[in-house]
Amino acid sequence: MTSIIRVINPNSNTGVTNGMAEALAPMQFPNGPYFDCVTLTKAPPGIESQADVSTVEPMLAELVQADTEAAAFIIGCYSDPGLALCRELTDRPVFGIAECAILTALARGSAFGVISILANSVVRHMRHLRERLLHLHCAGDRPLGLTVAQIESDNDTFSKMVETGKVLRDEDGSNVIILGCAGMARHRTALEKSLKLPVIDPTQAAATMALGTVSLEIKT
Amino acid sequence: MTSIIRVINPNSNTGVTNGMAEALAPMQFPNGPYFDCVTLTKAPPGIESQADVSTVEPMLAELVQADTEAAAFIIGCYSDPGLALCRELTDRPVFGIAECAILTALARGSAFGVISILANSVVRHMRHLRERLLHLHCAGDRPLGLTVAQIESDNDTFSKMVETGKVLRDEDGSNVIILGCAGMARHRTALEKSLKLPVIDPTQAAATMALGTVSLEIKT
Amino acid sequence: MTSIIRVINPNSNTGVTNGMAEALAPMQFPNGPYFDCVTLTKAPPGIESQADVSTVEPMLAELVQADTEAAAFIIGCYSDPGLALCRELTDRPVFGIAECAILTALARGSAFGVISILANSVVRHMRHLRERLLHLHCAGDRPLGLTVAQIESDNDTFSKMVETGKVLRDEDGSNVIILGCAGMARHRTALEKSLKLPVIDPTQAAATMALGTVSLEIKT
Amino acid sequence: MTSIIRVINPNSNTGVTNGMAEALAPMQFPNGPYFDCVTLTKAPPGIESQADVSTVEPMLAELVQADTEAAAFIIGCYSDPGLALCRELTDRPVFGIAECAILTALARGSAFGVISILANSVVRHMRHLRERLLHLHCAGDRPLGLTVAQIESDNDTFSKMVETGKVLRDEDGSNVIILGCAGMARHRTALEKSLKLPVIDPTQAAATMALGTVSLEIKT
Amino acid sequence: MTSIIRVINPNSNTGVTNGMAEALAPMQFPNGPYFDCVTLTKAPPGIESQADVSTVEPMLAELVQADTEAAAFIIGCYSDPGLALCRELTDRPVFGIAECAILTALARGSAFGVISILANSVVRHMRHLRERLLHLHCAGDRPLGLTVAQIESDNDTFSKMVETGKVLRDEDGSNVIILGCAGMARHRTALEKSLKLPVIDPTQAAATMALGTVSLEIKT
Amino acid sequence: MTSIIRVINPNSNTGVTNGMAEALAPMQFPNGPYFDCVTLTKAPPGIESQADVSTVEPMLAELVQADTEAAAFIIGCYSDPGLALCRELTDRPVFGIAECAILTALARGSAFGVISILANSVVRHMRHLRERLLHLHCAGDRPLGLTVAQIESDNDTFSKMVETGKVLRDEDGSNVIILGCAGMARHRTALEKSLKLPVIDPTQAAATMALGTVSLEIKT
Repeated sequence: MTSIIRVINPNSNTGVTNGMAEALAPMQFPNGPYFDCVTLTKAPPGIESQADVSTVEPMLAELVQADTEAAAFIIGCYSDPGLALCRELTDRPVFGIAECAILTALARGSAFGVISILANSVVRHMRHLRERLLHLHCAGDRPLGLTVAQIESDNDTFSKMVETGKVLRDEDGSNVIILGCAGMARHRTALEKSLKLPVIDPTQAAATMALGTVSLEIKT
Repeated sequence: MTSIIRVINPNSNTGVTNGMAEALAPMQFPNGPYFDCVTLTKAPPGIESQADVSTVEPMLAELVQADTEAAAFIIGCYSDPGLALCRELTDRPVFGIAECAILTALARGSAFGVISILANSVVRHMRHLRERLLHLHCAGDRPLGLTVAQIESDNDTFSKMVETGKVLRDEDGSNVIILGCAGMARHRTALEKSLKLPVIDPTQAAATMALGTVSLEIKT
Repeated sequence: MTSIIRVINPNSNTGVTNGMAEALAPMQFPNGPYFDCVTLTKAPPGIESQADVSTVEPMLAELVQADTEAAAFIIGCYSDPGLALCRELTDRPVFGIAECAILTALARGSAFGVISILANSVVRHMRHLRERLLHLHCAGDRPLGLTVAQIESDNDTFSKMVETGKVLRDEDGSNVIILGCAGMARHRTALEKSLKLPVIDPTQAAATMALGTVSLEIKT
Repeated sequence: MTSIIRVINPNSNTGVTNGMAEALAPMQFPNGPYFDCVTLTKAPPGIESQADVSTVEPMLAELVQADTEAAAFIIGCYSDPGLALCRELTDRPVFGIAECAILTALARGSAFGVISILANSVVRHMRHLRERLLHLHCAGDRPLGLTVAQIESDNDTFSKMVETGKVLRDEDGSNVIILGCAGMARHRTALEKSLKLPVIDPTQAAATMALGTVSLEIKT
Repeated sequence: MTSIIRVINPNSNTGVTNGMAEALAPMQFPNGPYFDCVTLTKAPPGIESQADVSTVEPMLAELVQADTEAAAFIIGCYSDPGLALCRELTDRPVFGIAECAILTALARGSAFGVISILANSVVRHMRHLRERLLHLHCAGDRPLGLTVAQIESDNDTFSKMVETGKVLRDEDGSNVIILGCAGMARHRTALEKSLKLPVIDPTQAAATMALGTVSLEIKT
Repeated sequence: MTSIIRVINPNSNTGVTNGMAEALAPMQFPNGPYFDCVTLTKAPPGIESQADVSTVEPMLAELVQADTEAAAFIIGCYSDPGLALCRELTDRPVFGIAECAILTALARGSAFGVISILANSVVRHMRHLRERLLHLHCAGDRPLGLTVAQIESDNDTFSKMVETGKVLRDEDGSNVIILGCAGMARHRTALEKSLKLPVIDPTQAAATMALGTVSLEIKT
């Protein structure tokens, strides 16, 4: 029987959820675990403040506790909302996409740069990094100045990402780039080519770690 | 066409190579990348000293440079010999199993413990950890007092691993355990059950990261 | 007009709230700010898990936003629930009792020890400390193995605190002790005498900082 | 009987002493401890070098040992001269204004900036910060290029403080500002309004901590 | 003309000064700089407290300023009293024996252990180490419980040093040992043989660095 | 009998070896140890890549093992190739010139700057520094953009060194400068005069430490 990895988009923007499913398609192997991307429909359209984080945490807790089917969970927001909470509520593995992105980046480079959505996000990211004692590995975290909705719709998103990525690479000294939002995945390959540096999409990073964990649990 | 991930056992112990292939079988998906485990036949039977590290580095460099087929490389020894060297010689991703194990462990717990083979290994591991500024995340690194060959053949290996794992968990405060040698994979599941903590096999950790990286390169 | 410092007990245990008011009485000066201790009546009886933290955060946010009278807020739980959240929602100063206790302790000693309620609390405290990059100043954090309710009622609470305090002092090398729960204040003076070390009550530490801040705002 | 907190200005500039008394007036509560600000009359007119630090240390030691009346001491110079020395000589609490300012700032922001008097001061401050392992929390320390005497008399002092504060805020990323000299207190409120960031006067920060400590000692 | 390196024993114990001269004899080369060991005759018999440190600092300043002959200075006490002060007063190199011992130890091992005289010394050493951000390299610092005078006269000094050294090596994991007092030099060779670890005498370490610095200044 | 300190230039550029011998002449004392500078004749002309490091390590191991005469060894390349390896193979002291330069610099200043040959070298240096947990003491590491051969022959080498040194001093805040290559020694004195900061030649720093170590071994 196929194992299910529940990938939770904790905002109500289904465009982001669809983008995640698309981003994970290359890792959807026959006989492999199934990545089921779901939307927290009552959540705000984007996690853009600490208030948004606080709003979605009980929803995530409820979803994880009610879900007896999934072999593992992925919380699909670069603020990793509710990560400690959900881990307290289940013995099954719970992966945060920011945590996995950072750890995956460190297997590709020694100093990562983050492309964030808003200046406000950077403050949350710094607390997140310090809590994991990984702040010294961060060369820079620079915002595009776009909301989650604008990331989805804005025609200039990619060119702004390239511009920000170049500053992270050339001024801050990053040798690997992290996309600091679940909604930027479709630009990953093009950005990698443009910057000539590895670019990590956080949902893909978490999906990779979940894939390994779940595959080994069921078969060995 | 199937992508190939070359998994190099840098010691000449084919038992270890076979153990790696077995450990990676659950991640060998139809249409997924192929994990090809190879042995450095002229290498020493185990990497048990800095001299062994130094001996195999030029062999690894030669192998990586001659191999135009692989999409990615995994260096399958917990000392990560030649990692910086091989990365200098190719643009394709090169994964070290120690580096990947540590980073994967930090997605499962906040403080890892390492089960090593010899007291001498611990000294090398500490330099490796410090170089990556991840020494503060290591709760303990304790040797079994067995060589690579003994790990393979010794009947007491598993019971010694359990005993060491309990000390790492109960005295050192580890909440995730890393197998500090490529030759311990077959004990992973049983040890996880015995210690009731996640146990990370380094080759599987590196294979997971390589799988994600290579899948995304070819398909997105 | 007298300034008001709202001291919020984010659990529903009114015994803890009363204990806070008693602990702050010596700092209730004529013409000074008034410490108004209030209870989050719909909150759980103690903050003993990440789920409890997550439950009270929206309640704290609502209270802070609705309160247009207070000159400053104190969140009266050693997990500092909702601290970043409330700071985002108001320009008035918000003090967390854990944060203030730690910073106050460092004005009295170089290495502090924390007496916690439950083993589970220590895990939350460590994340809290790391986030502030103050983990290297913590000599130890040891649980009594008592819930908030038991702290209030248990006859042995004080003797267990002395015992734990001695281990923090003699084995861990603490030269200042922090009471890791808002409900231990009435034992502070006796513990200080017993251990012959400064003992910091977190609510008193936060009240002191709030007193200074508010006094200077209104009068200078 | 009223407790006395002896606030020692370790330079001979009585203008600085008077400024301290004025700065502490809002915390002089009826029935509260009395802040008695005194001048080290034989000290140099400002602590502007390591030689000045060394000169005043024995004077501070003598004063503290001879004073059997005070409940606590505050050393009123941002180099915290003689802090370890005086703590060795008395069991009563001794507060350093730099130490208290830094710890108080960290209850208001995550990264502080310091406005210093001379370039030479910055070097002393860095040693002071490192000794407390709080150097990573300092976003910047920038000198005005004014002596203690000039701070007192110079008409441009405030405009230079605003200019320096803006650089600390906008270029260095400080989210709380510390006045790095006991003689800048009268500019605190105006600077806070101008920079729209909390501004900490070190003497007020130490007086606050002393007030809390002494109030709790006498009444609980 | 021969260069002079002034080695200042900042206590008044001439036995210590003579021991220094004896310890430096092997580095007294024909045509090399001359190590002139002098005693601060008005100083206390040992630097055993912060008060002692504070007492000798002005004496050291006076000596350094009056001495126009020496090419370099060594402050011969493991608390490095007056090091920042003397460096402020002269452009000639000033070496602290604790600083030099620590740095020299790190060229021989990765984790040093210190044999101190009194428990009180350890507190001073920790501040000294933190100020230099070298505290993570210290595996342990353990006192003999002997004053400077007792170190000189006690028949059991060596056996206590061996005992303490074994704890630093076997329990704390030190792989190099530092003698934490200028008066232990005559036991260095025997202790090295007994512990089978490099043992660093601080005066010899500072003399070595001064020798190199002065030789290169005069001849290149 | 005279002790011999074998100083190994691990590249085949005899100009560098001769420069070393010249740099060490001022420390060649009558009756002191003899610095014997030798060339690894089969090595590449410069250590300019990780591949070069890997190439010379077995040669260094062979040389050290075959040499039963030397009292100590110095590995004369700023990448410290084979340092852990050679230390594993002999009980005699082995000094790395980068390690000794860094430690010596920290006895002269609190933040060092490194003048490197190539951008590529900086990456190796950072790994080297992190491994020793001394990365926080490095204010900057800036390349000249010259190979080892060009350093030897280029007429502009000195003016480029001055220019780079000024940036390390004025922009990065270095208060001591390290020459990041064994082939720059002849410019040390002039650079020191030009920058008005201590300048450390790594071979001289290692020779000084070796001189002290060997002198004390033979005579005490």
